[in-house]
Amino acid sequence: MSRVAFEIEGRDGRARTGKLILPRGEIRTPAFMPVGTAATVKAMLPDSVRATGADILLGNTYHLMLRPGAERMARLGGLHRFMNWERPILTDSGGFQVMSLAELRKLTEEGVRFRSHVDGSEHMLTPERCMEIQRLLGSDIAMCFDECPALPAERGAIAASMALSMRWARRSRDAFGDRAGHALFGIQQGGLEPDLRAESAEALTRIGFDGYAIGGLAVGEGQEAMFGVLDYAPGQLPDDRPRYLMGVGKPDDIVGAVQRGVDMFDCVLPTRSGRTGQALTRFGSVNLRNARHAEDPRPLDPDCACPCCRSYSRAYLHHVVKTGEIIASMLLTWHNLHYYQELMQGLRAAVAQGALDAFAAAFHARRAEGDVAPL
Amino acid sequence: MSRVAFEIEGRDGRARTGKLILPRGEIRTPAFMPVGTAATVKAMLPDSVRATGADILLGNTYHLMLRPGAERMARLGGLHRFMNWERPILTDSGGFQVMSLAELRKLTEEGVRFRSHVDGSEHMLTPERCMEIQRLLGSDIAMCFDECPALPAERGAIAASMALSMRWARRSRDAFGDRAGHALFGIQQGGLEPDLRAESAEALTRIGFDGYAIGGLAVGEGQEAMFGVLDYAPGQLPDDRPRYLMGVGKPDDIVGAVQRGVDMFDCVLPTRSGRTGQALTRFGSVNLRNARHAEDPRPLDPDCACPCCRSYSRAYLHHVVKTGEIIASMLLTWHNLHYYQELMQGLRAAVAQGALDAFAAAFHARRAEGDVAPL
Repeated sequence: MSRVAFEIEGRDGRARTGKLILPRGEIRTPAFMPVGTAATVKAMLPDSVRATGADILLGNTYHLMLRPGAERMARLGGLHRFMNWERPILTDSGGFQVMSLAELRKLTEEGVRFRSHVDGSEHMLTPERCMEIQRLLGSDIAMCFDECPALPAERGAIAASMALSMRWARRSRDAFGDRAGHALFGIQQGGLEPDLRAESAEALTRIGFDGYAIGGLAVGEGQEAMFGVLDYAPGQLPDDRPRYLMGVGKPDDIVGAVQRGVDMFDCVLPTRSGRTGQALTRFGSVNLRNARHAEDPRPLDPDCACPCCRSYSRAYLHHVVKTGEIIASMLLTWHNLHYYQELMQGLRAAVAQGALDAFAAAFHARRAEGDVAPL
Repeated sequence: MSRVAFEIEGRDGRARTGKLILPRGEIRTPAFMPVGTAATVKAMLPDSVRATGADILLGNTYHLMLRPGAERMARLGGLHRFMNWERPILTDSGGFQVMSLAELRKLTEEGVRFRSHVDGSEHMLTPERCMEIQRLLGSDIAMCFDECPALPAERGAIAASMALSMRWARRSRDAFGDRAGHALFGIQQGGLEPDLRAESAEALTRIGFDGYAIGGLAVGEGQEAMFGVLDYAPGQLPDDRPRYLMGVGKPDDIVGAVQRGVDMFDCVLPTRSGRTGQALTRFGSVNLRNARHAEDPRPLDPDCACPCCRSYSRAYLHHVVKTGEIIASMLLTWHNLHYYQELMQGLRAAVAQGALDAFAAAFHARRAEGDVAPL
């Protein structure tokens, strides 16, 4: 099997930094992937997303298969051309969204039958169809079709679900085939059970993937439980392949996960927060709706180089958040994505210099100080 | 009285081209001013607005006096700094919005008392307070406080309203004083009555303004009636001063008004249409919601150089309009403003070359062809 190159250039404890090399571009790791659910990173133009430092986006298979549809996307030349983003795109499997968004789901060994939340139309997702859809979209990194059980769940249910996901992983691998320059990632399941996680990791490693996701976390279990799994789960996966923690997370989740050996992340938090008046900064989160910002001439973060912080006051951001102006979403999303990419750059540099613990300590100390003092 | 320089560089029939020179920048005329109601041109960053070719923006006094408030804006350094737009800004008087948006209005000789549509707070706008607010905002071109009666109205009502507006124009002029580098425009009223329009023009000319607006049009009277007034009203105003047709309009309104001697325009149409899936092109308007665009790989206008037409298909625009994505508003607003500024550039060049009739004929012929044929 041809494999997409993953070069580890530095290590610090369990953390690693390097790059994943794809024909459409290199992905510097640890990497944060902004979420572009429906062929757009909400409230951002692709050039602006790139300007924040993003090497790769995430697209949602579930949303795109419903609108505009996978076959239509292929006829239009694929997702990259469609959304004007020429760099790599990772597509999820749709499995998580089917379980959280779709209606009238029916799960069988074959796959999941469901009705669209958009128009009620009936669809079937199987590992084979899931691979076909991601190929039609033109995804650079495809994800195995998996089932993600909600936590808490009984051990028996988690074990059965994991076993099903492993059978689907095999079918996904077979259906994906061998596509030069395109990667397929397996997804480890097993909930909070170390032995089930180990069993899942072994099953996936036997099949062989270009990268391995740690699935079934960030579904409400809390940071402590998540870090508990991350204390051992990355070590169960092949060392020479990228590890991707799906749907994570808050800045402190990311720092902790990098310290535990995770290489890739995605999360809607920076984009969604940007649309609700919430800024994420080095000092923690800042709610621009708060009246204390109404006459504050200072930027969100005087040391941030993003267009929002370079040219706008907190007073302006407060005003446009309160009046519901689209520019509030545009500026705060830009800032939040910029902050996330700056954090990833800091993490990469710290790992390369063997200074990750000091970086993490400074990160937590700044947040403990809280937001800059009011005027 | 010091006067802001207005240089007429070319004429073609009644049409003129030239520039209005302000300390913050020159305004090439005929000019279209994008509307930035609440300190933002909706769905656009200021750099992008400038990139479309806009020399000046319009801000709404009524909205800004309510949020964030004129005194607060002054403490924050004025509207330009607040919204990150360093070029000229024209502010309207708020008179029109008070009559269309505010609640519990009470009109007297002194001014208008009203309640905010935002929070019910009570406010009073008089010519003096209106001038003070526009000064506090930092407006480069202020408008006289006027009353704009809804049409149709009886001749007596229009005459009385016009006379009140002329008394308020005198008070506005006195209150504005003489501020170097800042302009004050009078507003002609008189409905569809040529003699009342003449009387209004004479009253304003006696007072003396840096420019003259033609008010009370584009309030539902229709293009034919509006052009009927424009056949004589510009000629009633001083030839050596810019003439501004407030709230106009559709592309064909603008072409016809330039042919009749108007120099400046503002309208929410390009921005508002952009937020409702409507594109304005050389071929007329295009509704991106229409299913015929769902698989159309062509741009809106293959000859348009805006970022929307350079990088996105109609299929993509259809998709993001249908899914309600913010990028739909961003891209279509950008295209529409780009198209408007390109139209103004074409009009300026045509007037300079004495080729305005040919330009207008080609403009109407392209629109008669309609949108490009479906695939």
